[in-house]
Amino acid sequence: MGGDLGLRATIPAVVTLLETSPLLRVIVVGDKNKIEDVLQSLADSSSVISFFQKDNRLEVQHASEVIGMDESPSIALRTKKDSSLRVAIQLVKDQRADGCVSAGNTGALMAISRFVLKTCETIDRPAIISALPTAKGQAYMLDLGANVDCHSEQLYQFALMGDVLVRELKGVERPRIALLNVGEEEIKGNDQVKQANELLQSDPSLNYVGYVEGSDILSGKADVIVCDGFVGNVALKSIEGAATLIVRMLSDAFKRNWYTKLVGRLVEPVLRRLFQRLDPGAHNGASLVGLRGVVVKSHGNANAGEFIRAIELAVSEVQKDIPSLIEKTL
Amino acid sequence: MGGDLGLRATIPAVVTLLETSPLLRVIVVGDKNKIEDVLQSLADSSSVISFFQKDNRLEVQHASEVIGMDESPSIALRTKKDSSLRVAIQLVKDQRADGCVSAGNTGALMAISRFVLKTCETIDRPAIISALPTAKGQAYMLDLGANVDCHSEQLYQFALMGDVLVRELKGVERPRIALLNVGEEEIKGNDQVKQANELLQSDPSLNYVGYVEGSDILSGKADVIVCDGFVGNVALKSIEGAATLIVRMLSDAFKRNWYTKLVGRLVEPVLRRLFQRLDPGAHNGASLVGLRGVVVKSHGNANAGEFIRAIELAVSEVQKDIPSLIEKTL
Repeated sequence: MGGDLGLRATIPAVVTLLETSPLLRVIVVGDKNKIEDVLQSLADSSSVISFFQKDNRLEVQHASEVIGMDESPSIALRTKKDSSLRVAIQLVKDQRADGCVSAGNTGALMAISRFVLKTCETIDRPAIISALPTAKGQAYMLDLGANVDCHSEQLYQFALMGDVLVRELKGVERPRIALLNVGEEEIKGNDQVKQANELLQSDPSLNYVGYVEGSDILSGKADVIVCDGFVGNVALKSIEGAATLIVRMLSDAFKRNWYTKLVGRLVEPVLRRLFQRLDPGAHNGASLVGLRGVVVKSHGNANAGEFIRAIELAVSEVQKDIPSLIEKTL
Repeated sequence: MGGDLGLRATIPAVVTLLETSPLLRVIVVGDKNKIEDVLQSLADSSSVISFFQKDNRLEVQHASEVIGMDESPSIALRTKKDSSLRVAIQLVKDQRADGCVSAGNTGALMAISRFVLKTCETIDRPAIISALPTAKGQAYMLDLGANVDCHSEQLYQFALMGDVLVRELKGVERPRIALLNVGEEEIKGNDQVKQANELLQSDPSLNYVGYVEGSDILSGKADVIVCDGFVGNVALKSIEGAATLIVRMLSDAFKRNWYTKLVGRLVEPVLRRLFQRLDPGAHNGASLVGLRGVVVKSHGNANAGEFIRAIELAVSEVQKDIPSLIEKTL
């Protein structure tokens, strides 16, 4: 039910994926009537849909409440026991589902996941990790906003979780782990970062490459970039903001006059290819790691095609059983 | 002596500016012989230079030592009493100069400035502030790395200093002050940020617009963006990294084949205009505010043209007497 497009993104994504993935089974959780309506509206594939339903590959699980995108997670946790988000997470807890994907309220998703699924025994706090496009491929950064204040031990655990995720999902044998820090020698890092640096250096199991600065996040210097949730959230959104500004200025630049418009026409395919590589949608899906279950957060403004990426991410985390690998590793 | 280009950037910048600014007087501090050599090498304007020197508008002050870009500021502060940086700051202290501009070691510049010039009585810690290009013009962000851990009172003082600077330098009557924070409701800010938010709300003299996220830094939502030095440094460098990556991918995109190369030729002037707007060099010069004197840091890789911006910034801060305005305001 969550996200800017709600069911108009999630349902088409589910149907498309069911068609291409014969082993996939999906339980859609939310307002039964609204869900049925959208399923019917997909007229062309409605026969396919009923087939999926007969086949038990597509179920609809009713939930009477919805958590708003700006609702306070703690209040939602206390009051909305029958929200689509809560019911979906409960399905994972009850092992009726292997994982949960949501485009809804991130804070609520984390709070309810921690309350219902619980945190891995070996983990202090779960974290949010996501892939970013880099000059050379992808980098994973965590935490992206679940923990504003982190002590060194937590940052160390983030590194271990990032290591497992990138090794298993991307097949990188020894992911390069880096700690996000500031440049000026004088003030190199706060105490948490300095202590985390020592913990990371003293762990031979990790391929720790040391400190990186904000300018290195996208440079491809590291496969996993570790920071607290405040810094990670600001860094991620600063990058998104810079990309947005440049892309807008670029398209404006081609609207200036008839000549630039003409050139713009010629240049369009080149730019489209470029933006496809930069497109955060192509990397849609942030993983909530450190929980006893697979939970993936889709970007709120994801369209159907982008929401598919988030489901696929959840599927591969289930196939690799990331949660128990993390539990074992730590 | 500092910066990647050293005297090859600073000396031509000084000479160019002396030619265009009849009231400007410059004391170049560093290795006398090297400086004289570069001055001589500017053959075409050597007559002009000797005229400046007769006219006392261009002096050379010898300093026997240089602080390396990666040297520890605290060690440099203790050991290099005759470094160009130390001597230049001392000239400001002795009122032989009105301000100091350096492309050298930022940490050392801040440490020596605090030790020699001292901090304004009303300020806990000086901060580094710089302008960033936005969708609508410019935004100023502080602190950019002088203070990794800031309590709420410091963040509040940063806001007051940013307010004075933008009001006086940019002529913005009531600068919109924003506090940098994270998005997720659940974890909205750490304690320092929440307390700073209350301090800012309770000050009617400020045009405080509340929290902004990393994605808003370049959106033009605020004239002054306040954060601690760790977050500010990471955000600034994340933005630089994103811009660098996009620009490189863009130029690569046009190198792919003969067609894209042809289009690239046509598109070049459009892109050049765009990059001029984004060019950090056009905004070169970060101010060390909260000190009893004007100190401006030029980007280490600034060329002569960009170093001129940093000198011009220092000149306008001297003309407006920013340090005492800050002392009065707080």
